[in-house]
Amino acid sequence: MGGRTAVAGDDIPPMKTLSRDAAAALDAADPLAALRARFLLPDGVRYFAGNSLGAPPRTVAARLREVVEQEWGGGLVRAWHDWIELPSRVAARLAPLLGVEAGEVMVADSTTVDLFKLLGALLAARPQRRRLVAVEGCFPTDLYVAQGLVEPIGGELLERPLSGLAEVLPGSAALLVSHVGFRHGELHDLRALAALAREHGALLVADLSHSVGTMPLALADWGVELAVGCTYKFLGGGPGSPAFLVVARRRQEELQPPLRGWMGHADPFAFETSWRPAPGVERFACGTPSILALAALDAALAATADVDLALARRKVEGLGELLMSLVDDRLGGTVEVASPRLAAQRGAQVSLRHPEALALTQALLAAGVVGDHRPPDLLRLGLPPLTLRYADVWDAVALLGDLLHSGEHRRPPFATRRRIT
Amino acid sequence: MGGRTAVAGDDIPPMKTLSRDAAAALDAADPLAALRARFLLPDGVRYFAGNSLGAPPRTVAARLREVVEQEWGGGLVRAWHDWIELPSRVAARLAPLLGVEAGEVMVADSTTVDLFKLLGALLAARPQRRRLVAVEGCFPTDLYVAQGLVEPIGGELLERPLSGLAEVLPGSAALLVSHVGFRHGELHDLRALAALAREHGALLVADLSHSVGTMPLALADWGVELAVGCTYKFLGGGPGSPAFLVVARRRQEELQPPLRGWMGHADPFAFETSWRPAPGVERFACGTPSILALAALDAALAATADVDLALARRKVEGLGELLMSLVDDRLGGTVEVASPRLAAQRGAQVSLRHPEALALTQALLAAGVVGDHRPPDLLRLGLPPLTLRYADVWDAVALLGDLLHSGEHRRPPFATRRRIT
Repeated sequence: MGGRTAVAGDDIPPMKTLSRDAAAALDAADPLAALRARFLLPDGVRYFAGNSLGAPPRTVAARLREVVEQEWGGGLVRAWHDWIELPSRVAARLAPLLGVEAGEVMVADSTTVDLFKLLGALLAARPQRRRLVAVEGCFPTDLYVAQGLVEPIGGELLERPLSGLAEVLPGSAALLVSHVGFRHGELHDLRALAALAREHGALLVADLSHSVGTMPLALADWGVELAVGCTYKFLGGGPGSPAFLVVARRRQEELQPPLRGWMGHADPFAFETSWRPAPGVERFACGTPSILALAALDAALAATADVDLALARRKVEGLGELLMSLVDDRLGGTVEVASPRLAAQRGAQVSLRHPEALALTQALLAAGVVGDHRPPDLLRLGLPPLTLRYADVWDAVALLGDLLHSGEHRRPPFATRRRIT
Repeated sequence: MGGRTAVAGDDIPPMKTLSRDAAAALDAADPLAALRARFLLPDGVRYFAGNSLGAPPRTVAARLREVVEQEWGGGLVRAWHDWIELPSRVAARLAPLLGVEAGEVMVADSTTVDLFKLLGALLAARPQRRRLVAVEGCFPTDLYVAQGLVEPIGGELLERPLSGLAEVLPGSAALLVSHVGFRHGELHDLRALAALAREHGALLVADLSHSVGTMPLALADWGVELAVGCTYKFLGGGPGSPAFLVVARRRQEELQPPLRGWMGHADPFAFETSWRPAPGVERFACGTPSILALAALDAALAATADVDLALARRKVEGLGELLMSLVDDRLGGTVEVASPRLAAQRGAQVSLRHPEALALTQALLAAGVVGDHRPPDLLRLGLPPLTLRYADVWDAVALLGDLLHSGEHRRPPFATRRRIT
């Protein structure tokens, strides 16, 4: 933000609810405040886009160097003796964040590929059920995966709002939901959805990409038996880090992935010519995993293994409440809060709606406030609880007010720059 | 190897064909000899297992550090502006090694997943052809993928030796082959196989994992329209580095992957609810790619971009001839050469057959000669042309003779250690 850190210009009315000093006092009292120092973050940046890509834990670069120079370079192929267990070790780190046992988590591939394996396995196990139902607001790649699976078998994918689910669930194989919606940050009640799906003979498949790491998850307790999620958002695993897949133990024997690979074989190094599924969730592994990507994720998870996710969730709620109250006070009427107002219905994200959202995102970015834009008119502000400060929220809203008042975002280069992805 | 570098003990008959000095002289005259210095290799190791995992180019660790600290840490989500093009940049580096255009290569996921996309697309495009044929000797994961695709549609996978292909190809969708067999190193004539497949209305799908980087490939010239391969063997991309997939331009429009993801969408960042295939080979991308894994591969490919693959192939042949002639002279009768004798029929690997192959592999390993074992009775010696020396071959055979003579490999710990993977 450079010279603009003191963003409240002479002609901007002061915020009513909370001063910047008061926001800074919230940071001083924040039990998670010290965690920010564990991450690499450029000076002067207010980083909201942790719901897109989390900041790197400081330990990652050194760990990668060790893997390349000592393990790969020093051990060469012999390093696989240890690496072969790395996916399981990372799965064991993820299990407590998900509220399941280590043997119910598999780490590999992308969310897209893992969801394909899970939905494909489910459709194959229930050949008389060729319909998939998606709660409106799913991340698009999840819908593409589902479409690609049902089309060849003459099935269908139906997207429905919560109120329309009961009507289409009978005869469906699965109910697909993004735990937290990527556009508006709505937080779904997975326990209720799992029960609803089961009531109609379907199974809930939850995409946890936008919730894992921001709140305690209790999949087993909630009755959620199948899930996927990415690790590069709030878990800080790095760009495109490996995804995870959850299959509750009682479902493991009946499900076989459509994508069969040697890493999911009962005895990969016997090099048999026919596939035999590994016992348990390991059968959902397929190709050789990227050890560099896994090692970075492992280091990231280790760096925050001591975090109390109940505190993280409380901070997420606090950051969201502050953001919305400041928006209401300062920007009321010009910018609409597009996320649920109730904390219990909101994930670690507040989306703001404005017709100039794209240009505003660009102008904020130029001033060091990093959020992102989702078409057509959303400015997304993620609330990564381990790296975002209350004062960052204050600064962002102040700067947004400044821009809306000055109209600076309507001038080049913001109005002309290409879309931020 | 430590104190055993001079391996010819008093009681071992000297090699007839070639002295160690003569082998060292071949290294001195090797036009590729200087390349070895570009890789990290532990002192004293003779590294044959480059057909399993290539040694790391020295530039990789620094590049990863740059990606983590400067790009990820410094740019955060903004770094995606550049990263989003990384898969295409890596594809462009691979294209000349494959003999195709950059727009015919897609880099992502594992060989397993990429083969699934390719075979699945082919089966969907030819619904009346539900048979896949595999040339005997395919890597098992390729067979597992094929089985997983044909089973649900009531099709079949048939494995046949070369002589049995013509009989089963009519009515088949694809002919699958490992360009170089993982067990015996047999090198297939892809031009002939592509022509044979086409003659029967099928398409050849070649797995190039064991050939790319060891010889010039000319897929377009050979009429090979579909291929996959891994990059962690002779290309040095790192453990589990991203795989590649080739679709000749003339086949791109007719083929759509069964695995549809947002990175293969025509406009990923429009977040549309329905999948529209990207033009060209990009439609075969699916989830968010690992940037760490891609950056390591990119650095590895850059480190050897100036290598003349015709020279690499010549060295591979020279290393193989030397190995076999030394085996014949010194070990004749006790160890069988299980790879083709003719250079034109052999890839960058010589496999030796011996009932104690596992224990021999372990004992060689303990002495710094790193090969690997394939059940039941093969000792595989890969011939990575950029890092292996003629003198390494001499030392390995001498040590093998020493072991067979002394029987050291029959004593603990070698006879009792668990299998090397």
